[in-house]
This record gives sequence, structure tokens and C-alpha cells, in this order.
Amino acid sequence: MIVVLTGGTGGAKFVEGLRQAVAPEDLTLIVNTGDDLRWWGLHVSPDLDSITYALAGLLSKERGWGVKGDTFYCLQAMGELGEPIWFHVGDRDLALHLSRSKLLAQGKTLSQVTAAIAARLGVQASILPMSDSRVETRVDTPIGELSFQEYFVQRWYQDPVKSVRFPGADRAQPAPGVLEAILSANAVLIAPSNPITSIGPILAVPGIREALANTQAPVVAVSPIIGAAAISGPAGILMKAQGFPVSIAGVAQCYQEFLDILIADNRDAAAAAELKSSGLRVHSTSIMMRTADEKVKLARAVVSLLAENSAVAGAQP
Amino acid sequence: MIVVLTGGTGGAKFVEGLRQAVAPEDLTLIVNTGDDLRWWGLHVSPDLDSITYALAGLLSKERGWGVKGDTFYCLQAMGELGEPIWFHVGDRDLALHLSRSKLLAQGKTLSQVTAAIAARLGVQASILPMSDSRVETRVDTPIGELSFQEYFVQRWYQDPVKSVRFPGADRAQPAPGVLEAILSANAVLIAPSNPITSIGPILAVPGIREALANTQAPVVAVSPIIGAAAISGPAGILMKAQGFPVSIAGVAQCYQEFLDILIADNRDAAAAAELKSSGLRVHSTSIMMRTADEKVKLARAVVSLLAENSAVAGAQP
Repeated sequence: MIVVLTGGTGGAKFVEGLRQAVAPEDLTLIVNTGDDLRWWGLHVSPDLDSITYALAGLLSKERGWGVKGDTFYCLQAMGELGEPIWFHVGDRDLALHLSRSKLLAQGKTLSQVTAAIAARLGVQASILPMSDSRVETRVDTPIGELSFQEYFVQRWYQDPVKSVRFPGADRAQPAPGVLEAILSANAVLIAPSNPITSIGPILAVPGIREALANTQAPVVAVSPIIGAAAISGPAGILMKAQGFPVSIAGVAQCYQEFLDILIADNRDAAAAAELKSSGLRVHSTSIMMRTADEKVKLARAVVSLLAENSAVAGAQP
Repeated sequence: MIVVLTGGTGGAKFVEGLRQAVAPEDLTLIVNTGDDLRWWGLHVSPDLDSITYALAGLLSKERGWGVKGDTFYCLQAMGELGEPIWFHVGDRDLALHLSRSKLLAQGKTLSQVTAAIAARLGVQASILPMSDSRVETRVDTPIGELSFQEYFVQRWYQDPVKSVRFPGADRAQPAPGVLEAILSANAVLIAPSNPITSIGPILAVPGIREALANTQAPVVAVSPIIGAAAISGPAGILMKAQGFPVSIAGVAQCYQEFLDILIADNRDAAAAAELKSSGLRVHSTSIMMRTADEKVKLARAVVSLLAENSAVAGAQP
């Protein structure tokens, strides 16, 4: 069983490749829900949605979120009704939010709803929200504290970031199966997601860091950083705001308590050598995922690295 | 001020004509909400929607409900998610239900929400739900009691009807402005709607029958029946189930406590003569509304009848 911690568009791309390199029933995804929002009165879980769509083969490759070929007629009509439309929801995508919101209103937990929706879309991998309780990613900026979607989507991450916090995390519990999956995994992967706002909320849920440190499985992270910049999005800005260097060394630092192997880009050879000399195992490959081919290639490289290392770090006795 | 009691597709067609014969600010619509349903977790008010769309010039003329030119991509995706799809909601139409549900969840009343949505769509007429509380039309059939939409849309009104009841009506109050509008109107029109399940729920709200009987305005009903059959839909079946003859005499009987003038089709000359001999004023014209032209023609005929009668029955002193 391969367990993947994931969130954001980088995470969804990585899972798109992975689903073509690993049997789906061997995959468990632990997904960030810090980005969740109430939108048009509905419960929207952007990262759960992207991972669900990626595994169902429905993810829009052009946009990196939402359903491929989707239309936006409801969005347009919402605009005409004077409702906010800065967060884009397609007509087909809306069905998932309606269905989730309805099931949640009936008293089901987010994990139960996530599993039900995945099953209805024919997804065989296990998709677990990091927690069934509300943990919210809040970004403090000079104009005030913003939700992640306000910061990222509404304001195009142009505000300087003072800090990031995760209210609700201290009272949260991992969703059922999360700790068990990490502790019994053959390998744990950390997707090339933003370490602060995609993986950070998962790590903020009490018990998850400890499980990652205690699991016998190798914990392998794919860097979302090449050189001194994020491959996409605000990962660099947010790492800097939280006091981490924007580099593969900074990524290693984010995960230092439990990281066994860091997968970095070939172009980071010098930084990789330096990290290696400090004792971390670093594997270099091409980590860009611009095309379907590159996604599968990266996934295959990760899987063969895991095969080589299953005997080394953390194989089950 | 012209007050119109309305519901159903016949009512929406009538209002489509009326808005071209009367200044919108002179129109107050009192609308059936007995058909309202919870659908995909949202509050859908089919009759309020149709009247709002009709007055905004958005009503689909092909279907007689929903938004013209609407698409059904969300509906299709809901079906793929295993959600029920027998009640059709278009992508643009969905925006109205989302917006209404959101405002209701914020604690606004149905009247407030209806007014807000109408204003956003540029509607200048006043649209009032019959009540802000839940009054539900329930149809008793051999397979059990059905909601109106289950009876009408899901099962194509093919079940024999034993009776119709309106639970919630005894505790309901007319929405703010309803009684005042009836009592201060220059004329009250009853649209050619189903007397039992479109106008019946309105009349079941305590105080509305009394206001209709007490208003000084003439109360004028347009018949939904020609000969021994409804122009469309289950009006005939339901009138029969409730013990009324399926004829213009039956329509007159439904409204007997307050009806001043019945507008019937030219083809009902004999029945009209008989009704007249019993003391009711009956005006004959063509009441078919197959085309935009016929809708406006009927509306103009009604308006000129009102002009002739404003001095006779119920003009304000």
C-alpha cells in the first residue's frame, strides 16, 4: 500500500501520473482540507475534488482543477444574480458540491461522503480527508487575515504574507483510517504540493506528524521547488513567510522530523549534494509535470525508487 | 393596482401576457408555494420561479418552466453521481435555487428572498409568496400520499387521486403584504391555473378567502377549463377528485364565495348562459394561450374588461 499526502494543483498532477503507475487499490490518498470553503451555500473541498477527479480520469488538464470539458453557465447566471463569482465552479463540478453538501446535511461525515462520491465515480483508490473536523488555513496579510481561497484565488496571492495559521487544528482528529494507513503503509509519499498550505494543514492535525515519524515505511517527498522558486503557485512566498529557505533544503527542513528520501530535480544537483552531505538521502530526476508523459515518467521513477528501497527503510517484517 | 393569484404553467403563461398589457409597477402577484420542494438540498419554488422568469422575460416558452436557452450539464452530472434527476433543473435555473437557498439559510424570509431575487433580475412587479411558512400540497393516491411534484412531475399525474390536502395551512399566515394587496386592489385576477393545486393552496392560507370576499375590487377568474377538460395538466382530474364538476360551472363553484366575473372560452357559450342565468357574470372570449400573440390578446381582453367594470364592482371611493 502506498500512502500519498497531497493537496493543491501540484498534488493533483502527481496523482494523475501515479494512478497510471500503481494499481488504484494499492493507493491511499490523505488529502488537505484546509482550503475548504462555503461557496454559494455549498461545502466545496477543492483538494478532495481535484484528487477525486484525477483518480476518476475527469480532471481538466487545461485548468488543473475541475472537470474536463466543463461549462460555466450557472456561474454566469450567479453573476447576473449579483452573487460572487471569483471562485469558479463549472456546471458538472457543481454536481459534486451539491451531492456532498446534501450528504453532509444528512449528518454523514466528510470521510463517508468522500468515499461515497469516489465510489459513485468508479474510483478504486481510498481517498481520505485529513480530518472530518474543520481545520482552516488562514493567511495573515497587511489587509487582514484571509482564507486560503481569498488569498490564492480571489486576490491572486499578491498580498505580502506575514504568517499562516490553522485554526481548528488543535481540536481536530485525523479522519478514520489516516493514522492506520500511514502506520501500515509500504511507502508514504509527500506529493510536490505546497509544504505550507497544502501539506502543512495535514501535518497540523494532531497525531499525523507522529505517525509519519513512527511508520516503518520510507517517507519520500517530491520537491515542489526547483532552484530558488516554486514550480508553480505561492509555495516559495509562503515558505519564506514561515521562515524556511526557498530551496530543496527548505523543503527538507519542512519535513525533517520524518523525511527519509527527498526527490529533487536534476537541476538541483549542487543543492542535492549539499543535503546528502548533511545525511539526507536525495534522489535526483526530472520532476517537471508539463505533459501527461512527464507525469507518468515522474510517477514511474518514484515507484521504482520505492521498489529499490522497500527492503532498506521500513519494509514490513 | 392589479393583484393576480397564480401558480402552475397556465398561471405563468397568463402573467407573460399580462406583463405586456399592464405597467409592471401596477402588478402584484400572489404565488402558490404548495409545490415547493427540497431538491438536491436546495429550496426550489417552482411557481415563484416561473412567475419571476416570466416577469423578467427569461421564461422558456418551449418548456413553460425554467430559463430560456438553458443547459442541463449539472443535471447530467448529478445523474452520473447517482442522484435523482426526475425533477429537471437547468444550469442557469440552478443559480436562482442556490441564491434563494443561501439567503434562506442566512435567516431571510421567503418573501424577502423573493423580492431580492426579483429586484436583481430587474423585475418591477411585486411578487409575493402566498405565505412565508411551509404549506405543502399533498396528493393522496392508491400508492400513498405524494408531494405535488412527485405526483405531477415524477409520476406524470397518472395515479388516481383520492384527495388533496395542504398540511401546514392551518398554522400558516399570509406573507406580508398579501392581505393588504387584495384589500386595496383595483382588481383581483385569478389566473387560469389549476383551481385545486395552484390556487387551492393560496386559498387554504387563513385570511386569504376572507380578504377576497371583503375586497371592494372585482374578483375576476380566467377559467383553466374549456368544455369538460383542462386546457393542460391535471386540473380536471383534481377538480373531480375534490368533488367539483369539470366545467366552467365547476371553476365558478371553486371560487363561489368571492367570484364576481368568470372569463370563459367562447366555445363554452351554452355553459356560460346557464351560469349567467344562475346570477354569475360571465365574460366570453378566446382563452387559449398557444402563442405569444394569444397570451397578449387574452391579457388585453382581461384588462379592458377590468376597465369597463372598475366603476361597477369595487372601485375605490
